[in-house]
Amino acid sequence: MSPAELHADSIVIDGLIIAKWNRELFEDMRKGGLTAANCTVSVWEGFQATVNNIAASQKLIRENSDLVIPVRTTADIRKAKEQGKTGILFGFQNAHAFEDQIGYVEVFKQLGVGIVQMCYNTQNLVGTGCYERDGGLSGFGREIVAEMNRVGVMCDLSHVGSKTSEEVILESKKPVCYSHCLPSGLKEHPRNKSDEELKFIADHGGFVGVTMFAPFLAKGIDSTIDDYAEAIEYTMNIVGEDAIGIGTDFTQGHGQDFFEYLTHDKGYARRLTNFGKIINPLGIRTVGEFPNLTETLLKRGHSERVVRKIMGENWVNVLKDVWGE
Amino acid sequence: MSPAELHADSIVIDGLIIAKWNRELFEDMRKGGLTAANCTVSVWEGFQATVNNIAASQKLIRENSDLVIPVRTTADIRKAKEQGKTGILFGFQNAHAFEDQIGYVEVFKQLGVGIVQMCYNTQNLVGTGCYERDGGLSGFGREIVAEMNRVGVMCDLSHVGSKTSEEVILESKKPVCYSHCLPSGLKEHPRNKSDEELKFIADHGGFVGVTMFAPFLAKGIDSTIDDYAEAIEYTMNIVGEDAIGIGTDFTQGHGQDFFEYLTHDKGYARRLTNFGKIINPLGIRTVGEFPNLTETLLKRGHSERVVRKIMGENWVNVLKDVWGE
Repeated sequence: MSPAELHADSIVIDGLIIAKWNRELFEDMRKGGLTAANCTVSVWEGFQATVNNIAASQKLIRENSDLVIPVRTTADIRKAKEQGKTGILFGFQNAHAFEDQIGYVEVFKQLGVGIVQMCYNTQNLVGTGCYERDGGLSGFGREIVAEMNRVGVMCDLSHVGSKTSEEVILESKKPVCYSHCLPSGLKEHPRNKSDEELKFIADHGGFVGVTMFAPFLAKGIDSTIDDYAEAIEYTMNIVGEDAIGIGTDFTQGHGQDFFEYLTHDKGYARRLTNFGKIINPLGIRTVGEFPNLTETLLKRGHSERVVRKIMGENWVNVLKDVWGE
Repeated sequence: MSPAELHADSIVIDGLIIAKWNRELFEDMRKGGLTAANCTVSVWEGFQATVNNIAASQKLIRENSDLVIPVRTTADIRKAKEQGKTGILFGFQNAHAFEDQIGYVEVFKQLGVGIVQMCYNTQNLVGTGCYERDGGLSGFGREIVAEMNRVGVMCDLSHVGSKTSEEVILESKKPVCYSHCLPSGLKEHPRNKSDEELKFIADHGGFVGVTMFAPFLAKGIDSTIDDYAEAIEYTMNIVGEDAIGIGTDFTQGHGQDFFEYLTHDKGYARRLTNFGKIINPLGIRTVGEFPNLTETLLKRGHSERVVRKIMGENWVNVLKDVWGE
């Protein structure tokens, strides 16, 4: 098979997209041959604002049903593949939208939310994010993990602090993930994960999606798709070929105001970080360029079998484990 | 002056009452000669439910204006004394009602909230309570402390964890308090404060109100008003005669359902503690028996000057420091 044929034949999953929700994004997903993507519907929002985001996203999916379908099960992912559409899975980057209600976990599951990051950068009721001192998983957080296990929502730890992450990994009875992270072995950064952390999650049945967000890459905005592939290989050497996938963190369509929102606590309070200029690696600047990643991985000597796993098959397996369907 | 005359002449402040809001309570406050009290309007409630509590309480105060007046300044406390009424100050036992909005601090100040406990028993966005592992004051918590300082809302640490308490004491530019606590020197309990903690808050200009809540007293429900006086004396020996006051934690009028609400995280989740039977010390079982405390303190050899300080003058001074008026 040619690289293009392999890409077209593969299940391609992006474990994290936080791009602007619109038809242009969906068109680019089709151009990129994406089978499904975890699309963020909540970062700093509380319960009702998140429900509003979901309602708006559902309407947009409905209006663009020639391009996308909603995903609640891995069967929906297979269906998207068969229909030549992209499956849209709702995800949170912050458990904040659960507010103080354990019952909201199931409410959101019923609305299509299948992955929830426990904390976004700072402390919430569950634990603490990676941009401040981390006191670990709270008692309420343990109740939330148990409920996420029960109803089938995957725990994501990408922006979560080291101590809270370790305790969620130990607490959860289902596999958990870093949906979008990079190894600190290639660049030290509060958002990047150490070799020990990557090994720990894999040793406990967890999963790692590798991102390519420029500020966390050694070469920053001068990176290329080969730097991204190198980070994938570095991570795969630690977690193994069955626990690795893609989680790009594509932000396309958003302006500076959105990054200001992301980089301030609660969306408006103190500044937590400053990304500077954001340019994705050359060769994979947009979702539409996804086929280049399959080609690059093949060029670098990976087998078709391994490339299929990295590009999406592994994600499907771990989601099936967590969702049960 | 006889004990009764001294009590009638004194400013008498209760730093914490969480009794059922009704006319019977206000009548008992008058019977007890209370000049003012910090009355809880929020424990586990979020923003809007707390505003609803305040609106209902304001209506109740209006309807019983022959007995009570609202308190926003220490001048209002003097006015209550002059009018022979009890001043009602709104307080939170949890910063949870601020949700994720720093601006809500001033909103609630404008609604009459003058004292806010940073955490109630467990972790919130600000820090962690005394019934679970405590990772300290969060970055958002530091912003909340600064805003409370700016608008004049006192930080209360009674149910707050040891580490968060220490960090709030160091962070705040205005005096902070344990509005209702007991010394662990008399009984070990997660809610009681060590000699070191009592000394630390006093050394940093803070204030301690002493409670008489049976589960935290050595003799439990067999305690008498003399056991309460002993706890006041023990605490005063550490913090000094200018930093001490009363904070009874009267809960009268509430049934078992309310204690179930208090003792579960978020009001409904996992159980945090079990108080068992609650009977206040003999001699001060109800708010109406407040004059017995003045009499008991006099009997135990304290001067009129010191008794006046304990019973309320010290509270007025520290509130003036924090509120600025």
